[in-house]
Amino acid sequence: MSKEMILEKQQQAIQILNEKNIDMWITFVRETGNIKDPMMDMLVGTNATWHSAFIITKSGETIAIIGSLEEANMKTVGTFKTIIPYLKSVRDDLRQVLIDRNPEKIAINFSQNSSLADGLTHGLYLDLLKYLEGTPFSDRFISSEEIISALRGRKSQTEIAIMKEAIAHTLQIFDEVGKFLKAGITEKDVAEFVFKKVEERGFGFAWEKEYCPSVFSGPDTAGAHSGPTNRIIKPGHVVNMDFGINYKGYCSDLQRTWYILKEGETEAPAEVLHGFNVIKKSIELAAKAIKPGVVAHEIDSIARNYIVENGYEEYPHGLGHQVGRAAHDGGALLAPKWERYGNLPYMTLEENQVFTIEPRLTIPGFGIATVEVEVVVTKDGCEWLAPNQEEIVLVKA
Amino acid sequence: MSKEMILEKQQQAIQILNEKNIDMWITFVRETGNIKDPMMDMLVGTNATWHSAFIITKSGETIAIIGSLEEANMKTVGTFKTIIPYLKSVRDDLRQVLIDRNPEKIAINFSQNSSLADGLTHGLYLDLLKYLEGTPFSDRFISSEEIISALRGRKSQTEIAIMKEAIAHTLQIFDEVGKFLKAGITEKDVAEFVFKKVEERGFGFAWEKEYCPSVFSGPDTAGAHSGPTNRIIKPGHVVNMDFGINYKGYCSDLQRTWYILKEGETEAPAEVLHGFNVIKKSIELAAKAIKPGVVAHEIDSIARNYIVENGYEEYPHGLGHQVGRAAHDGGALLAPKWERYGNLPYMTLEENQVFTIEPRLTIPGFGIATVEVEVVVTKDGCEWLAPNQEEIVLVKA
Repeated sequence: MSKEMILEKQQQAIQILNEKNIDMWITFVRETGNIKDPMMDMLVGTNATWHSAFIITKSGETIAIIGSLEEANMKTVGTFKTIIPYLKSVRDDLRQVLIDRNPEKIAINFSQNSSLADGLTHGLYLDLLKYLEGTPFSDRFISSEEIISALRGRKSQTEIAIMKEAIAHTLQIFDEVGKFLKAGITEKDVAEFVFKKVEERGFGFAWEKEYCPSVFSGPDTAGAHSGPTNRIIKPGHVVNMDFGINYKGYCSDLQRTWYILKEGETEAPAEVLHGFNVIKKSIELAAKAIKPGVVAHEIDSIARNYIVENGYEEYPHGLGHQVGRAAHDGGALLAPKWERYGNLPYMTLEENQVFTIEPRLTIPGFGIATVEVEVVVTKDGCEWLAPNQEEIVLVKA
Repeated sequence: MSKEMILEKQQQAIQILNEKNIDMWITFVRETGNIKDPMMDMLVGTNATWHSAFIITKSGETIAIIGSLEEANMKTVGTFKTIIPYLKSVRDDLRQVLIDRNPEKIAINFSQNSSLADGLTHGLYLDLLKYLEGTPFSDRFISSEEIISALRGRKSQTEIAIMKEAIAHTLQIFDEVGKFLKAGITEKDVAEFVFKKVEERGFGFAWEKEYCPSVFSGPDTAGAHSGPTNRIIKPGHVVNMDFGINYKGYCSDLQRTWYILKEGETEAPAEVLHGFNVIKKSIELAAKAIKPGVVAHEIDSIARNYIVENGYEEYPHGLGHQVGRAAHDGGALLAPKWERYGNLPYMTLEENQVFTIEPRLTIPGFGIATVEVEVVVTKDGCEWLAPNQEEIVLVKA
């Protein structure tokens, strides 16, 4: 992320601290080359080796307390106004910064609900308590999840413009895959084809290459979050692909479905068309209900219920997640009220959040139908960033 | 890391659990695409999206409790013998696995001392307590740092062989840099040259490219852990570079020092030679003292004292760290007893650990002299994997 974009995000963070009346936000880290707080790229723009505190205050200060060997680097990076280098321990400087400002509400980088707000490891948390022993500050800790949910969720127009470009490039690769597909090749062949397209255009992958793309062919596929296999694509298979790129630091995340025609067929069988159309319609219904203020799990229910009413099994995951610099971004999640999703399904939608919508269903004997789109929440509804798939794409065997 | 190497490391982990009498080791994670426990590559070999517990027991079991959508992927990856998929919450399966085995000592992936053993975020730790509420298990938690220190520290012969290759490739690039160096080019030019060499050979970088390599020229350099600048290399400068590659998953980490001759000079000035020789000698003295059973900070003291006795300022960092899959690897650290290093300087050395030795000193008016070597601890001493630099390399302006 460029220095300019980081400074813009810091300004946005200061506004959010004021809006939520939080005096100070501390991101406490170490050895980010080994394990990196997910906010480092957006807030700091470089690594930290020794215990380091990156602090933003409601009054607009930005303070980095870092190991002295990294002082010159932090100055070069230029994202923090006040840089406090230490030699032997972060303890004294950290205490002093807190004592001088006496913040009443201190957001810390941990969260039970959001992995993006949970960069503080437990060992580091214990260190933080140790360093602040005898002060009142650790009693004033709250989770930074509200700040991060707003900061990552509310996309700027610049961010949305980049995400639109990412989507356009991704859809082009989906088109090319449609032309490449035929009976006799394997899921892995499709993945190799996609790798080539991504790499020759200099894009990155939106998530780990081992299942980016995921490719699923036919009735006996492995299911979501699996890598492509040596399974051979055959006539009569429903094929789909889950895939996204990382473009200028932003991810896309899309899915499309194809059908491989059997000899003599000129269109997909009725069961396939029906399954596909139920998916398509469930996405339309969900998108229609999206607007600021709606509780996230309600959107999931709309698609889930429609699919179940049509006689299919419910999908074993959430309907959609936010997208941004991370493929799974932001706070609010379009998901059912299952424990594994924490409080994210209970959060309300806000303007400028970007969501995927990605229901799935199994068409017995043929494969999995799934379409994934991206929408951005607008003032009174949502706008499609990546359109719905209007028709299942037919592929000649 | 290949499946075979992961299974080998798991076997080693089981031996370590027996040696240290720890009944069970749990690595608890979620959304490793956003924040990844540093042990995932070595233990699991794939990502986990939902709350997941990767468990190894003293009796030799390997158990993965994971979100159901990732069951097929875990089977394909094939690194865990027992795979338990869940739909709505990890709670019940996790409790059941613990109740069935009733472990008395449970190592968990957190540590105040070692970032590599500190992959459990604080939010996840709170989740873990919540899931185990009403059971005795959370009272039996200990840090996994001892296990990880042994597991990452004790290199197999396969690992050492790969690391030797990594070092040979790295030293070759240092040689090429020596030929490329001349007055008038900038630190950044040197870095660009190195980038090209690394990329055309298909290597990775041992740490973030922004300061890999670090290049320091002359008396006014930025200091360690800084990126290369537009500073121009001039006659009379001492130049050094800190650089390593990632080769087949293993890192190298080396430093070398050059001197840019002034017109008419045929060798470096006496002050430069003296500074360089003090560095070289301090490394020899430290290496001579390395053997199993020695406490790590004692090695640091040997080099540190020798440098100070010779009238130079002590270096503001540790003498050396372990290297492996991470540039900063393992537990025991050749560092002074400063708070920022936790208990790592108090640990004892073990056979097959690989350490850097990297003292530094400033030669006033000329620049920084620093050499970094790698050694592996043997049964009764150490073996040089990357040799000491015998002489400062002279560069014609």
